[in-house]
Amino acid sequence: MSKIVIIGGVAAGPKVAARARRLMPDAEITIIERGRLISYAGCGMPFYVGGQIKDFDQLFSTSYGVIRDEHYFMNEKGVKVLTRTEARAIDRQKKEVTVTNLDTGETSTIPYDKLVLATGSSPVVPPIPGLDLKGVHRLNHPDDARQIVEQLEGVSEAVIVGAGLIGMEAMEALLKRKIFVSVVELKEQILPGVLDPDLAAVLAFRLEEEGVEFHLGKKVLRLEGDEEGHVTGVVTDGGTLDAQMVIVAVGVRPNVELARAAGLTIGETGAIAVNEYLQTSDPDIYAVGDCVENLHLVSGRKVYIPLASTANRQGRVAGDNVAGRKSKFKGVLGTAVLKVLGWNVGRTGLGEQQARDLGYDVITAINATHDRTHYYPGHDNLLIKLVVDKKSRKLLGAQAIGGGDAIKRIDVVATALHFGATVDDLFDVDLGYAPPFSTPIDASHHTANIVRNKLDGLARTITARELKEKLDRGDDFILLDVRTPEQFNYRHIEDDRVMLVTLGDLRRRIDEIPRDKEIVTLCALGVRAYEAMRTLSGAGFKDVKFLEGGLQGWPYELE
Amino acid sequence: MSKIVIIGGVAAGPKVAARARRLMPDAEITIIERGRLISYAGCGMPFYVGGQIKDFDQLFSTSYGVIRDEHYFMNEKGVKVLTRTEARAIDRQKKEVTVTNLDTGETSTIPYDKLVLATGSSPVVPPIPGLDLKGVHRLNHPDDARQIVEQLEGVSEAVIVGAGLIGMEAMEALLKRKIFVSVVELKEQILPGVLDPDLAAVLAFRLEEEGVEFHLGKKVLRLEGDEEGHVTGVVTDGGTLDAQMVIVAVGVRPNVELARAAGLTIGETGAIAVNEYLQTSDPDIYAVGDCVENLHLVSGRKVYIPLASTANRQGRVAGDNVAGRKSKFKGVLGTAVLKVLGWNVGRTGLGEQQARDLGYDVITAINATHDRTHYYPGHDNLLIKLVVDKKSRKLLGAQAIGGGDAIKRIDVVATALHFGATVDDLFDVDLGYAPPFSTPIDASHHTANIVRNKLDGLARTITARELKEKLDRGDDFILLDVRTPEQFNYRHIEDDRVMLVTLGDLRRRIDEIPRDKEIVTLCALGVRAYEAMRTLSGAGFKDVKFLEGGLQGWPYELE
Repeated sequence: MSKIVIIGGVAAGPKVAARARRLMPDAEITIIERGRLISYAGCGMPFYVGGQIKDFDQLFSTSYGVIRDEHYFMNEKGVKVLTRTEARAIDRQKKEVTVTNLDTGETSTIPYDKLVLATGSSPVVPPIPGLDLKGVHRLNHPDDARQIVEQLEGVSEAVIVGAGLIGMEAMEALLKRKIFVSVVELKEQILPGVLDPDLAAVLAFRLEEEGVEFHLGKKVLRLEGDEEGHVTGVVTDGGTLDAQMVIVAVGVRPNVELARAAGLTIGETGAIAVNEYLQTSDPDIYAVGDCVENLHLVSGRKVYIPLASTANRQGRVAGDNVAGRKSKFKGVLGTAVLKVLGWNVGRTGLGEQQARDLGYDVITAINATHDRTHYYPGHDNLLIKLVVDKKSRKLLGAQAIGGGDAIKRIDVVATALHFGATVDDLFDVDLGYAPPFSTPIDASHHTANIVRNKLDGLARTITARELKEKLDRGDDFILLDVRTPEQFNYRHIEDDRVMLVTLGDLRRRIDEIPRDKEIVTLCALGVRAYEAMRTLSGAGFKDVKFLEGGLQGWPYELE
Repeated sequence: MSKIVIIGGVAAGPKVAARARRLMPDAEITIIERGRLISYAGCGMPFYVGGQIKDFDQLFSTSYGVIRDEHYFMNEKGVKVLTRTEARAIDRQKKEVTVTNLDTGETSTIPYDKLVLATGSSPVVPPIPGLDLKGVHRLNHPDDARQIVEQLEGVSEAVIVGAGLIGMEAMEALLKRKIFVSVVELKEQILPGVLDPDLAAVLAFRLEEEGVEFHLGKKVLRLEGDEEGHVTGVVTDGGTLDAQMVIVAVGVRPNVELARAAGLTIGETGAIAVNEYLQTSDPDIYAVGDCVENLHLVSGRKVYIPLASTANRQGRVAGDNVAGRKSKFKGVLGTAVLKVLGWNVGRTGLGEQQARDLGYDVITAINATHDRTHYYPGHDNLLIKLVVDKKSRKLLGAQAIGGGDAIKRIDVVATALHFGATVDDLFDVDLGYAPPFSTPIDASHHTANIVRNKLDGLARTITARELKEKLDRGDDFILLDVRTPEQFNYRHIEDDRVMLVTLGDLRRRIDEIPRDKEIVTLCALGVRAYEAMRTLSGAGFKDVKFLEGGLQGWPYELE
């Protein structure tokens, strides 16, 4: 009888066990888990902290209300789970794992035919004095979530250290609890590694309007506490922030100690190296989930991007392989999505700077648009950015933010990326259209067309940041706002160089526009500004460009 | 100066004009439109009828509130529009179009260098006596929508003839006006050509719970009216339905008369034949939108699928080509989406029967699932069906219905289809996961896995219809419900052959299950039933299958 041993019982491990069981009815399948809890919905923790999920058990329950514990695995899957049991060493010669029962201290060995490492990741602990103060938390385990909820009382101000995915989710959760939240981030932007700085700036600008405070490019020096050892503030190189609660979310690192001690190859990213069958350097040992590195399917490089979706898909693949079915895990696209304060945020593939760092000659476009027809009630805004290789016209990546349905577009581009699509191909895909869901030319198509217009020399653009720098620098140019007077009066960029000529009047009033000056056209979304640019170019104006993303993508104050 | 003449000013025509103008600042561009209204949002009409769009003008307005009329096209685009002007003949030798002003009766000729036919489609008029009665409408033009709204008063019962996309939208619109609606459809299902009968049956069952009444497989014989010539009822071969309003929505046919008279090739579908540059058989004449046939990218056959999304994308391509840029329209996937009474409905590629008719050896799977993690508030149901070619494992099509986000999955499969993906490829795509948007293994991945499990001999299934027939036929078998007792007591199939063994008890109670009988396992969604099937198969049971789509996909009464 084949013996399958899986180390790690959170996400990928149980998935391996379930799949292997369906394929191998007679195998002896054992999961070893250091913690008390297994198969929990780690991604649900922020919603428990925020109060949208009332019942802690929901994080461990199936959709039909059964708690996923040792009994569940034994009864429904015929899988043995040893909790509070730590794997201490792997003897690859003898093919056995030495484990210690953390409650009794007892040590024993478990033999395996195939071993699967699903050892996960651990939160990075930054070198900040004061992390041991009361009221300082992380949000990587259900016990963390429970602790935070238990200690919410009396907290009116909190600081999140780190503006990554978990930091943003923690921020939203505490805001829902009516706590004032500041976020301190070492990098100059929120969601570094997820969004490019341009979209991150727009998102941060909008989130601050919702009452959160970002301290970007700031380093936490230490945490301060009172005599009772409870945190009272966060000292940064930009000043001190009061806080009765601090959540540290500065990323995770793969748990590779066991693998390293067993002599398995650790990859260049610091995570366990596996082949496309998820086999480690020992063919009888597989590794899955947050402890492994993956092939990035766009760059061809190894990356460490630990995500629950990857862990689960890998679980199925490894389950196949331990059962002797050859199954491949091809790699990842770095797709990541997030909902924060009503904003949908997503990315896939390479970011602009990532792509440049890899040597691509990159062209990008930012498109401000509606997710659905503007006459359909409930339509909302979207800002989509595409990153494209100039030479091959191949898609490299996409990012999107907005109150509108950004995630559908991210999944569409992810699918296109998977198949090596060019930006032209993206426009060719027959996507679904009806007013409740999209526009006749979908937002992703439209964004592709902006890139194509740029590639083909029809569209010349300037980014919000470049325009802001031009304005601040005092350049001599015309900023031609082509919106309606009503829209202009509602809000506009206040500057002497701004000139209002509504698009519908432009052909008639074209002689009022100076021909010897650089002209930047501007509107709400970019559509009219592009039309104006084409009209002026067609009339012989030599130096015209339009503001990409319009005022919807303008992350600075307006009058 | 190049002369571009476009016949048709609704969707594709204006799009051609706008694109051509951006590329050809000096060209003379003229749109000829028979009607009074141009560039209207035909797809928005049902929402005007339903009252969600209050203002008729919204159907003609840009997102920034400017009415798209002749002045708009002249002022913003430099495009001349002649409304109430009918193109009567094309002289291909002289390259001119004979037009008649419908208000003055004056006839003149307009010369062209490139001509674009965007003549659209007209509603099919079925041979039903009584169509001229007052209160009988169609919903193909904004004037139709306005008439319906003007005549709503006093209407308490309405009949829709035709259960296609427009029929369903009209149905929802009238329901929103608190009118009792019956729908008569000649075919045995709703949404023929959009959904396969299995998903259509589930959707119809659910929509009837919302208070609509379907009369499927019924033929309308005539409409009845009162002395004042107002409609009072619809006589079908299944009885008479009272109605103070009737909307006839039995499809559209392409307007090809002008093209045919000019000697242009009409395709096998009856629509204008074009090559991939959207050129007709005359290289100086292009055709776009509802009047042309398209290449179906999965089947390789010509199809007539008139949709606004196709029209708009074709407009850009033809705009390129009349301007001398070689641009291709590769074809369509038959993607169509719809929102009806809170249900999201979509399809792409080939339906099951379509695929069989084309000679494919087809395998399908229906997956009942959640669109998001079950613990996230607001998650909703989904039913996804994939159609796959057994031999090549290539995706052929997908359909989805549900309160949950079906459309994202349709767009993902459409994108995969475009690139010739196999069902295995679909699972490999790195889609975005976070609890507000999906499950760690996305619904589309999960559906792909069911197909793969069937292909690989791991999953054996039975459809709802097959099971119903088995039950009705009196077959001797065990219907093993593996849900919890609470779920079972809430609702179940009432039959002597039903046996309740909760999945968690199955391994312990396995000896209670007769080994000599055929067993069909059953649960809410299908996940536990599959697990039970694998458990029983693993224990040596020979004839086990599970109900695909579970009770969520069961379109019959339950106790």
